[in-house]
Amino acid sequence: MVLDPPLPKPLVGRLTVIGLGLIGSSILRAALARRLADEVVAYDHFEPVRSRVEALGIADRVAATPEEAVTGADVVILCVPVGAMGAVGEDIGPHVAPGAIISDVGSVKASVAKALAGQIPDYAHVIPAHPVAGTEYSGPDAGFATLFQNRWCILTPPEGADEGAVDLLEEIWAAMGANVERMSAERHDLVLAITSHVPHLIAYNIVGTAADLETVTQSEVIKYSAGGFRDFTRIAASDPTMWRDVFLNNREAVIEVLGRFTEDLFALQRAIRWEQGDALFELFTRTRAIRRSIIEQGQETAAPDFGRAHD
Amino acid sequence: MVLDPPLPKPLVGRLTVIGLGLIGSSILRAALARRLADEVVAYDHFEPVRSRVEALGIADRVAATPEEAVTGADVVILCVPVGAMGAVGEDIGPHVAPGAIISDVGSVKASVAKALAGQIPDYAHVIPAHPVAGTEYSGPDAGFATLFQNRWCILTPPEGADEGAVDLLEEIWAAMGANVERMSAERHDLVLAITSHVPHLIAYNIVGTAADLETVTQSEVIKYSAGGFRDFTRIAASDPTMWRDVFLNNREAVIEVLGRFTEDLFALQRAIRWEQGDALFELFTRTRAIRRSIIEQGQETAAPDFGRAHD
Repeated sequence: MVLDPPLPKPLVGRLTVIGLGLIGSSILRAALARRLADEVVAYDHFEPVRSRVEALGIADRVAATPEEAVTGADVVILCVPVGAMGAVGEDIGPHVAPGAIISDVGSVKASVAKALAGQIPDYAHVIPAHPVAGTEYSGPDAGFATLFQNRWCILTPPEGADEGAVDLLEEIWAAMGANVERMSAERHDLVLAITSHVPHLIAYNIVGTAADLETVTQSEVIKYSAGGFRDFTRIAASDPTMWRDVFLNNREAVIEVLGRFTEDLFALQRAIRWEQGDALFELFTRTRAIRRSIIEQGQETAAPDFGRAHD
Repeated sequence: MVLDPPLPKPLVGRLTVIGLGLIGSSILRAALARRLADEVVAYDHFEPVRSRVEALGIADRVAATPEEAVTGADVVILCVPVGAMGAVGEDIGPHVAPGAIISDVGSVKASVAKALAGQIPDYAHVIPAHPVAGTEYSGPDAGFATLFQNRWCILTPPEGADEGAVDLLEEIWAAMGANVERMSAERHDLVLAITSHVPHLIAYNIVGTAADLETVTQSEVIKYSAGGFRDFTRIAASDPTMWRDVFLNNREAVIEVLGRFTEDLFALQRAIRWEQGDALFELFTRTRAIRRSIIEQGQETAAPDFGRAHD
């Protein structure tokens, strides 16, 4: 897969990415590949990560401080764990330029909007965003330029947000290959609770349950994991700090959806106990249709076993 | 990936496969490719499936009846849903040859052993087996010869089983690329409850919960499924009949493991409610190690996102 060629004219003068993990480093790569800005600037609070990005050559310039990173930037994208947004906002707030767009990629939106609103001066535009994309790997080496291709990026502009600024942020994401949607932060947090947060929680949980069983050894769990269990271990290998923050910052929606999940699971357990085969068959048939739709809409591969090699 | 070349000398005279779906048709393909028997015979109770296998040319002979299929067979492998084993056993019982090995590939073993024991005469050897392998696709077109490569196949010979017969069955599976392990049917059913059955149930359940939520539309679930949800839809697209039978036939172990899963999930939910970030972080870190082991032991790919194409 090759990205489209660089834009004939960059969309902005200076684009700054703060936090250079999987997502941040993917934005850098996509921004350079498509030349979205005259200058693409990178910063991470962790020095080895800055050095690594320097060595990878995926930014025009690696800044040494948050101040240096955001000074003169037209667009700043924060790619740090949701729980760190307030602190980063505090670091950069005094240095952002009037009219600059301050955005992020956090998986929770209402709490990020709140954390940044207190730190970014009114003369800049805070427009939270969330590209629904990723892999189970972390760090600057894990990123790649096509990560956002045909994935959805959700913008959650606050009420009264500057339309021009929202449009420009949308153009940037579209240029990185994403489909862009707008909704309220609250709606985002509810929708993502079911499509991402609760699935991650369940995956972490089943992997933990399997590890803790006294009646089945860990070696057995590993050997026979191809029976289905291994599918869950992928998202349960995602970044622990990021996911801790997601759950702490989207508590209400996660607990609400989890309540529904558990209720449904108890009903299913009861159907097994009472040998209600028809009820099981009906559910198991219905769920096939949903995967089919996901494949048809390009959000999943139709290859058997996700396209895993069978060798 | 290419299979090893055909054996210099087939292991048995006649190998019969009954039930020609994903697993059955994969056995046919592997058995022909490696020439495990002088003659590989196929039968399915559904006529269009027999015709399709005939057209695919993946058996030396497609039999028209169960009687014709098993007459003179040295080894018979039943690849039908677990709930159908008793009926198939009844059909073939009177026709199996003295000394023949009757095996299967069902995902539950104690109930299969019981169902077959009543139907297969004592002069044949009933040796249940379970290759822990598969994809989410079904039917004779979905099979492939390398499906069992480096996957585990569990034999659950009953007490007092003929050692020569068990060894021969082990050779057959090893020749199809599988690693073979032996254990009791009861232990198998407990181990598979955690590595396969409960993961499938949870996957079916979360997909059902997502479909039924009134507050989030199905179209939103599909659009943003790359946030994690889509991973669950793969195994929730597996064959409904097969899985209904698994749950009905492994009730006790499934309900027991499910009890542990739910208990752990409630603890996790409580940790979120009370904002116990350290507890979340600790679990989320621990689960990474398990995936690493699964990859190291060749039961999973290390490629990001299962190796899905990013385009």
